[in-house]
Amino acid sequence: MVPRYARPEMTAIWEPEAKYRIWFEIEAHATEKLGELGVVPKSAAEALWAWWNTNPTVDVDAIDAIEAVTKHDVIAFLTWVAENVGDEARFMHQGMTSSDVLDTTLAVQLARSADLLLQDLDLLLAAIKRRAEEHKYTPTIGRSHGIHAEPVTFGLKMAEAYAEFSRNRARLVAAREEIATCAISGAVGTFANIDPSVEQHVADALGLKIEPVSTQVIPRDRHAMFFATLGVIASSIERLSVEVRHLQRTEVLEAEEYFSPGQKGSSAMPHKRNPVLTENLTGLARMIRSYALPAMENVALWHERDISHSSVERYIGPDACITLDFALGRLTNVVDKLLVYPERMRKNLDKMGGLVHSQRVLLALTQAGVSREDAYRLVQRNAMKVWESDGTLSLLELLKADEEVKAALSDEQLEEKFDLDYHFKEVDTIFSRVFG
Amino acid sequence: MVPRYARPEMTAIWEPEAKYRIWFEIEAHATEKLGELGVVPKSAAEALWAWWNTNPTVDVDAIDAIEAVTKHDVIAFLTWVAENVGDEARFMHQGMTSSDVLDTTLAVQLARSADLLLQDLDLLLAAIKRRAEEHKYTPTIGRSHGIHAEPVTFGLKMAEAYAEFSRNRARLVAAREEIATCAISGAVGTFANIDPSVEQHVADALGLKIEPVSTQVIPRDRHAMFFATLGVIASSIERLSVEVRHLQRTEVLEAEEYFSPGQKGSSAMPHKRNPVLTENLTGLARMIRSYALPAMENVALWHERDISHSSVERYIGPDACITLDFALGRLTNVVDKLLVYPERMRKNLDKMGGLVHSQRVLLALTQAGVSREDAYRLVQRNAMKVWESDGTLSLLELLKADEEVKAALSDEQLEEKFDLDYHFKEVDTIFSRVFG
Amino acid sequence: MVPRYARPEMTAIWEPEAKYRIWFEIEAHATEKLGELGVVPKSAAEALWAWWNTNPTVDVDAIDAIEAVTKHDVIAFLTWVAENVGDEARFMHQGMTSSDVLDTTLAVQLARSADLLLQDLDLLLAAIKRRAEEHKYTPTIGRSHGIHAEPVTFGLKMAEAYAEFSRNRARLVAAREEIATCAISGAVGTFANIDPSVEQHVADALGLKIEPVSTQVIPRDRHAMFFATLGVIASSIERLSVEVRHLQRTEVLEAEEYFSPGQKGSSAMPHKRNPVLTENLTGLARMIRSYALPAMENVALWHERDISHSSVERYIGPDACITLDFALGRLTNVVDKLLVYPERMRKNLDKMGGLVHSQRVLLALTQAGVSREDAYRLVQRNAMKVWESDGTLSLLELLKADEEVKAALSDEQLEEKFDLDYHFKEVDTIFSRVFG
Amino acid sequence: MVPRYARPEMTAIWEPEAKYRIWFEIEAHATEKLGELGVVPKSAAEALWAWWNTNPTVDVDAIDAIEAVTKHDVIAFLTWVAENVGDEARFMHQGMTSSDVLDTTLAVQLARSADLLLQDLDLLLAAIKRRAEEHKYTPTIGRSHGIHAEPVTFGLKMAEAYAEFSRNRARLVAAREEIATCAISGAVGTFANIDPSVEQHVADALGLKIEPVSTQVIPRDRHAMFFATLGVIASSIERLSVEVRHLQRTEVLEAEEYFSPGQKGSSAMPHKRNPVLTENLTGLARMIRSYALPAMENVALWHERDISHSSVERYIGPDACITLDFALGRLTNVVDKLLVYPERMRKNLDKMGGLVHSQRVLLALTQAGVSREDAYRLVQRNAMKVWESDGTLSLLELLKADEEVKAALSDEQLEEKFDLDYHFKEVDTIFSRVFG
Repeated sequence: MVPRYARPEMTAIWEPEAKYRIWFEIEAHATEKLGELGVVPKSAAEALWAWWNTNPTVDVDAIDAIEAVTKHDVIAFLTWVAENVGDEARFMHQGMTSSDVLDTTLAVQLARSADLLLQDLDLLLAAIKRRAEEHKYTPTIGRSHGIHAEPVTFGLKMAEAYAEFSRNRARLVAAREEIATCAISGAVGTFANIDPSVEQHVADALGLKIEPVSTQVIPRDRHAMFFATLGVIASSIERLSVEVRHLQRTEVLEAEEYFSPGQKGSSAMPHKRNPVLTENLTGLARMIRSYALPAMENVALWHERDISHSSVERYIGPDACITLDFALGRLTNVVDKLLVYPERMRKNLDKMGGLVHSQRVLLALTQAGVSREDAYRLVQRNAMKVWESDGTLSLLELLKADEEVKAALSDEQLEEKFDLDYHFKEVDTIFSRVFG
Repeated sequence: MVPRYARPEMTAIWEPEAKYRIWFEIEAHATEKLGELGVVPKSAAEALWAWWNTNPTVDVDAIDAIEAVTKHDVIAFLTWVAENVGDEARFMHQGMTSSDVLDTTLAVQLARSADLLLQDLDLLLAAIKRRAEEHKYTPTIGRSHGIHAEPVTFGLKMAEAYAEFSRNRARLVAAREEIATCAISGAVGTFANIDPSVEQHVADALGLKIEPVSTQVIPRDRHAMFFATLGVIASSIERLSVEVRHLQRTEVLEAEEYFSPGQKGSSAMPHKRNPVLTENLTGLARMIRSYALPAMENVALWHERDISHSSVERYIGPDACITLDFALGRLTNVVDKLLVYPERMRKNLDKMGGLVHSQRVLLALTQAGVSREDAYRLVQRNAMKVWESDGTLSLLELLKADEEVKAALSDEQLEEKFDLDYHFKEVDTIFSRVFG
Repeated sequence: MVPRYARPEMTAIWEPEAKYRIWFEIEAHATEKLGELGVVPKSAAEALWAWWNTNPTVDVDAIDAIEAVTKHDVIAFLTWVAENVGDEARFMHQGMTSSDVLDTTLAVQLARSADLLLQDLDLLLAAIKRRAEEHKYTPTIGRSHGIHAEPVTFGLKMAEAYAEFSRNRARLVAAREEIATCAISGAVGTFANIDPSVEQHVADALGLKIEPVSTQVIPRDRHAMFFATLGVIASSIERLSVEVRHLQRTEVLEAEEYFSPGQKGSSAMPHKRNPVLTENLTGLARMIRSYALPAMENVALWHERDISHSSVERYIGPDACITLDFALGRLTNVVDKLLVYPERMRKNLDKMGGLVHSQRVLLALTQAGVSREDAYRLVQRNAMKVWESDGTLSLLELLKADEEVKAALSDEQLEEKFDLDYHFKEVDTIFSRVFG
Repeated sequence: MVPRYARPEMTAIWEPEAKYRIWFEIEAHATEKLGELGVVPKSAAEALWAWWNTNPTVDVDAIDAIEAVTKHDVIAFLTWVAENVGDEARFMHQGMTSSDVLDTTLAVQLARSADLLLQDLDLLLAAIKRRAEEHKYTPTIGRSHGIHAEPVTFGLKMAEAYAEFSRNRARLVAAREEIATCAISGAVGTFANIDPSVEQHVADALGLKIEPVSTQVIPRDRHAMFFATLGVIASSIERLSVEVRHLQRTEVLEAEEYFSPGQKGSSAMPHKRNPVLTENLTGLARMIRSYALPAMENVALWHERDISHSSVERYIGPDACITLDFALGRLTNVVDKLLVYPERMRKNLDKMGGLVHSQRVLLALTQAGVSREDAYRLVQRNAMKVWESDGTLSLLELLKADEEVKAALSDEQLEEKFDLDYHFKEVDTIFSRVFG
């Protein structure tokens, strides 16, 4: 975890205290059910909950100190609870294995993280939608290969991002559902010493599904899918970030990351506003994406389990969730406050002297009866003049003045071919598809 | 594509001929709709389909020869079709852009590949299920960290694999749905020169959904998710393969990849049967997994599109699908024919002289009123003897002979603690969860 | 392997015939030494070489046909050789194991591939150097964060690329040396049935070093390092490709991938020249890079060896080498023929009305005794005017007209601060460092 | 950074204080040279060093507080220094850019980390060498595919590890040399406002080489190579870890990770000693390896620089170095204290009733004039009996009793074929190659 790329709410999920709180809940709920089943006294769970309801502070240092002696984290925790609750606490953990607690806890942490990330996505989607509607008909040049192609609107760019992050939202919902399972099945998953109803009880209490078949551990294909999904979301973050970085280039300057008037005033180089947020997001995306691979390598544990996955998850569990949460927040902020320059967009769009309309003219000439070869020749000879003038000549004007063109198309007809609205007639259709 | 890791049905999807057939269908369906809309003569589509219904051979070499001149694959194809269909063919491709054809074709290829992979998974699941039922109650030692833990059954191992590949099936269904979209939206996705109803028409005809918003290309987060999903499936293949490799180790030998009696007879080293199929699958899993990353890097195309994704997809499109298809087939074969040795499983289970039951004895002693410390001491002193005997002494016999133990537990009670069935009482519960 | 991204010379190294030729050489050289040692008759090697000197065609189909029966590639080959050479051939392969042949062959293939790649790098370096010298003093704007910073020269950009690919060359020399080892050490690397001098003899004959300690296989950390090195080289290819793609953007257009006059003439959209080669290279870089990970996963083979590495290498061996060879060739071509537009570079450089020189003016004012705060205020108020004029006003002219600035700096002094040559005074120093 | 996988000496390199100390040194050395050049007063550097020689505490909190206002880390630091040193400090950083400090600092941190890692490797190599010599002739079975093959010695296994980590050492030396460069070249690397001799001076003072050509930043191919090298080393750690995990399996038990007598005594399940250290190392290797990819993606920065690499390096800089340092330390400990069980090795070796010697018998029969087919048949029929007896019959005894075998080979000759020493005759040769 890199503190500067972390927000408190997500970080809290991954802190020791949160972990211990989940541990307690799992143990107390399990003890409760064991009480019902008559395996332990009902008083055990009562004592645990009575203490918990006093809202006790989880003394992480004390637990750590015990662990330093016992060399076992779960036992240290149980010991600490027993010190606080008293004798009844000895009935905790009956028939359970450490992984029952650890893996179910990881499931809760990942599910809670996913919930936060879903909120993040909702905020991002809302910001994108607002900007999409704001700029639904703001013309800008569409570019393929970095080269001017045909007009689009800035709203369409936002609509694409909206559709993409909506897909990411659906993927995350699916990944969350996959990861939110509870396993309390004992040393090798056979429920040898614990009734399956305990698992069901704890699962219900924590809002999880039961793991149909576990092997001391929850199978790691679930986690692999979760982290792979985060990697895809990160890649979409990169895409939108790269778009902003391109738009902010000195030569393009169609949009800029927000800067306060104060920031602006402080510089003797007013052009030097760097898209540092989206550059940063580009790097963060690389990191989040990279976590997918060790997560996939974790799947092939030996036999019923080995513990090689654990060290990997100590890194990527918090790092992937915390970093993605931060990145989504930052991207939302970027989108929300993005300075959009419609005039500059228009200026760039016109930069090529109307060459982006040459396709339509070509078609119109053909439809007006000119042969394909001749149409090509006519457009080309004028297009080349525009091109060589570096955009100072206008294709429309040249065409109007070209006798052969004139013979086929009136000024009005030509002008119609240079009409931007022609390109935007389906924008509303697309918006309906995307925003419903 | 490595020929030896390829099966014909999947390979065919990725061959030039299959590609050109899809191209034709897209173009013909689009022309059909354009005819309905009055943009082109209805006779155009009629001519195209009339020719197509003669079931013409797609002459890949001829198309290649034209491409060598035109330097453009789609134009080469259109030219070749025109040569065959005649004048009416000139109405094809009206208002469309190459990517409309290319990206929709990739969608069809990936969807068809997914269909084959789903069939593969069904066959694999059936094989696993059969072996699970066959060995539902075949005892074998459960191992954590590679060390004997508590008994499980071989059927449970299969049930885990079944549950895991069922999840993979569901993931692939989702990934297939994501990828199966049709985009016919023109040069920058604005439908400037083509009506959206054409896209809908082609989508319906090909069994695809429309892409809500495209930008000349279908957004690559869809593909990233698809290939990431294949990577997760591959990781599960690795897991089951590693299990088989472990079981086949000389010292374990609880199962073996199938060998024909002939193979067996041919060797002067009858012990030297190598798990080469599952080793091979382990390597293939590494490859399939590795494709997830370039697929994720493909997401952040520049502006409306750049073509950097294309070269990546020429590798990973066929390679990931063909290799996974092969791997699933090979794994199904391995599972189906796996030689399972219940006697050896039992022998290994008993290898530790009953030490795997020590936990239960410990618990029984405590429940019989012996203090935790004493119970530990009693079990331990006998366990150590067994251990030092390298499994030649029996823990049960030693405990029966231990006076202090005797005072707490009868022979019958002790024997009950060494009963394997105790561990298997919930096997049926787990099977119900997994197989329904 | 994707045929369109493959060149014949490199592809040939990875074809079956080349492989079999190396196999023969290894076997024949080994037999030769075994003859010297008296293990086999000297006539054996003589017969082998006598036949080889007739330059026989390697009949891949025939060998394949035998393999279809024997199910063993090396035995199939030996059988085919025996069919051709006759009885003396039976002495081949004495005391050797298949991996002795296979792994040493892979070493030869990788070493030969590295040799080709080193030639590729030399050609690329030569092209870069030529362009660097050509444009040593061609001014262009340096950009950080995509934003104009201070002037550089196009030659400097080339010098950076030269230095980077020189490092890559040195890395590849090291990686080649690592990979070029010969192991002929028998079933588990103990030389139980073959004298170490055979290994030395074959190594010498093939220009390899002996593998100090092998375990049936050559250790895979060597290969991991090799493919990781190719991944780094690919990343540098991506860097230079991304630079070209940026320079070719419509708004920047400081350079373009070459297009023939014919190509130019054929388009009615003269601006639509897409940097498809460098986009393609960007994608290829992603692929080559991705091979590093499965290569690293291959290192941890089980005990003395498992064969999981083999399937991976059947993909990445040819694919990484062939693709990188193609990519280096393509990049060399791009650099060699790159259309460079110094006028446009100058135009872009001047685009900001001289704002890129504001730092120097600031410094000059301070050195002229103006307080830091005042200097800032003076530069800033003029810079803002330029900025708001969208580059139509000139910072130099505004400063000359600013009374407070005038009081500190003469026109001449101001002009000196806008002198490009100031920035290029160390270009020669840098060139000396890079080109020697 | 995960605290439990971190050691203090390496962690210290990556802490803010260490970073600021390097910043100071760079600035002070640069100021010193600028003084010599007459650009700033000589008294400036004198004042800086005078203060530094008082060994002042670096007040990280104070610097952070300033950064919270200035929003710029380097300016915050310079301000804090100025507060401490006084007026003379204003001459610091003249003509430099932040990246001059930041990138050179990263170079120092990576170089120092590499130095620690080289020490780690030396300790590991020493431990491996000691165990190699200790067990130079300890027989153990060599395994290919997890199946018994032919005898090796445990010392040979160690020799392989020694050779592999020696290669890793050499790679790290090369990677260290690559990374240890100093760039002080200004905003776009042109030395516009700073003399190249300053760079040389600082480089010399810090034990770095000058970066021949930089672009505000040091090119990231250097870093990519560095992290890729760490990934390869991690893969070798995984290999040795997997070996230990295999050896510790219940059924194999030829070696175990160390446990103190106390640990042993505390368990009622003496067989349940889990190879948790090497499982943990397996996971850590996955993480370290994964950092290679974002490092490679960092290479293609835009134009002279973008800052996307920075966030990546904030993760992988410390995480890769700290985790690898920890992992090497842990592996050294594992090797150093590994419990090796030669008796069990011998028992396993003999497990197959001598089948591992069948190859040699086969050869001997052929050499004694038996036809290849007959030899095969003779060995096979006895081998099958041994195999079916599950190792209770002895191949040697059966062969001695086989009339047809007897006719070809005497008892003595047969016994010689079962002699382990035959396999170890070149162990010394191999040791000489590896250990010199």
